[in-house]
Amino acid sequence: MSENYIKLDASFISFGNAVGKKEYEGPLGERFDMHCTDDRYGKETWESAESEMQRLAFNSALAKKDLRFEDIGALFAGDLLNQCVGSAYGLCGCNIPYFGLYGACSTCGEGIMLASILATHGVYERVAAVTSSHNCSAERQYRNPIEYGSQRTPTSQWTVTGSGAFIIGNENAGKVKIRAAMPGCVIDKGINDANNMGAAMTPAVCDTLVRFFKASRTHPDEYDLIITGDLGHEGASILRKFMDIEGYPLGDNYTDCGILIFNKEAQDTHAGGSGCGCSASVLSAFVLPEMERGRYKKVIFVASGAMMSPDMIKQGESIPAIGHLLVFET
Amino acid sequence: MSENYIKLDASFISFGNAVGKKEYEGPLGERFDMHCTDDRYGKETWESAESEMQRLAFNSALAKKDLRFEDIGALFAGDLLNQCVGSAYGLCGCNIPYFGLYGACSTCGEGIMLASILATHGVYERVAAVTSSHNCSAERQYRNPIEYGSQRTPTSQWTVTGSGAFIIGNENAGKVKIRAAMPGCVIDKGINDANNMGAAMTPAVCDTLVRFFKASRTHPDEYDLIITGDLGHEGASILRKFMDIEGYPLGDNYTDCGILIFNKEAQDTHAGGSGCGCSASVLSAFVLPEMERGRYKKVIFVASGAMMSPDMIKQGESIPAIGHLLVFET
Repeated sequence: MSENYIKLDASFISFGNAVGKKEYEGPLGERFDMHCTDDRYGKETWESAESEMQRLAFNSALAKKDLRFEDIGALFAGDLLNQCVGSAYGLCGCNIPYFGLYGACSTCGEGIMLASILATHGVYERVAAVTSSHNCSAERQYRNPIEYGSQRTPTSQWTVTGSGAFIIGNENAGKVKIRAAMPGCVIDKGINDANNMGAAMTPAVCDTLVRFFKASRTHPDEYDLIITGDLGHEGASILRKFMDIEGYPLGDNYTDCGILIFNKEAQDTHAGGSGCGCSASVLSAFVLPEMERGRYKKVIFVASGAMMSPDMIKQGESIPAIGHLLVFET
Repeated sequence: MSENYIKLDASFISFGNAVGKKEYEGPLGERFDMHCTDDRYGKETWESAESEMQRLAFNSALAKKDLRFEDIGALFAGDLLNQCVGSAYGLCGCNIPYFGLYGACSTCGEGIMLASILATHGVYERVAAVTSSHNCSAERQYRNPIEYGSQRTPTSQWTVTGSGAFIIGNENAGKVKIRAAMPGCVIDKGINDANNMGAAMTPAVCDTLVRFFKASRTHPDEYDLIITGDLGHEGASILRKFMDIEGYPLGDNYTDCGILIFNKEAQDTHAGGSGCGCSASVLSAFVLPEMERGRYKKVIFVASGAMMSPDMIKQGESIPAIGHLLVFET
């Protein structure tokens, strides 16, 4: 059954985001709705700051279309923190039916996909998808607290401090349409370097892309933009090689959210950005606005996630990964 | 939008489960498909044993109807482990489109709900929902390694070692129909005792039940069975009081998966069973088979989850919770 893609008739009603200081200082800085100069968003802990970003991103998306909590039928949300507490605590009190997700950095794509299925079939009129990551909470949990000043490897990615929120309705509700989805399968090709997520995730992204091109009988050059999130510089270069071998070479229309969000040299971010908040903030601040302006008409977005935990790596296991594909059109 | 319930036209094609030694020794012991006498399922670590239980439960559900991986359109899966690795590692290699969930102990209900929505609308012909918990992996992660021999409080629940898998199709595919769903909202009433999950989850379960009875204009005594999973003895007794106050008193037709799975006195399990695997194994080994045999015709199942993490409790936060409601009929 993994050969078929899902046809959708949904669209983006609104979207919003909130990011940290480093993201604001990057190439997309002025495009974000909100930023915070100390990454704390007025909170005592990094975890609470991440929850606050989700709350603000969601409120920003609602405010742009004068919507309220009661206008939203259901919420899909998730993040990188253990037990997805960034979402549960950030969105507690909205009184909106809540579906918690865990898709690692692919959560943004997974949430938009499930929200679009519900909107397409009229289960709810408006469905939201919210996600986030925070550099300080993620580094402490997955690797070391940032205060340790650990040296980073060249292939390591920089977890983005940011949140993105999307409100999705039926086909006529918004300008950018969501036309198709190809959910990813969990794939593990034996990569066990927790500092090279790009290499671990690329086989899963390649698998989904190839399945989609075959099923849709389309080719990469038919799309104005193919954007992954977040393979970073390392993963994106591997993906190009894999896609060449598969007979679907990616041209100048291909890039990655983790490449766009930071200035690699000036910001010392090594292989680029990562984290649920990376693709969510780049999608909501750059891809969708540029589609609304007419720069891109037909876009493929593949959200990628590494489904490991630090414990599994310590136990000698390798890294399973996933890539969820969506097609947007204006 | 939280006042409406979702109408569904889905049914259970098959279901399967695998449990540990203590669960096999409990009142439902002989009903489970598989058990293991040392809870390791032939693996080196508790985490890998949990993954193996998911694989076995899913394979058991498939085998009962002579189905294969390629017959399943999509998988919804999740568990209690950090980054939901029980599911990602257990179901890696199936080559089935995968949606990772995090709903704490409510994951079983969340997965069946989303799978039923997809089956109702024909997105896929067959959709699976799989979940698990393991006493040793969960205790180590949430509280202390079992080797420490920590003393347990009277309100603490015993995390079930078990996994349940459900294969869902359209209305005509199976005998037990899934007629309605009322997804839960995240609710936090200020409980911050990590050893009293029953008290933390009860307000969320009560909220969903009351919203459902109001929306469906039905009353608790119209159902043959109302079963929560897993409030345990403590939460179930609180729920009875809350429902009395709300004007929907629960009668003898009410029980809880955490109450059914263990013999409280003989097995020293204090407030009863808990964990994603508790409601999943009780549902698949007791509730659904008894419905197929004709003992129950109309059943409400509410899967409850405590959406906290140990870190948030250490940071002084209270426990947000959720309750997802489903209506089954034969």
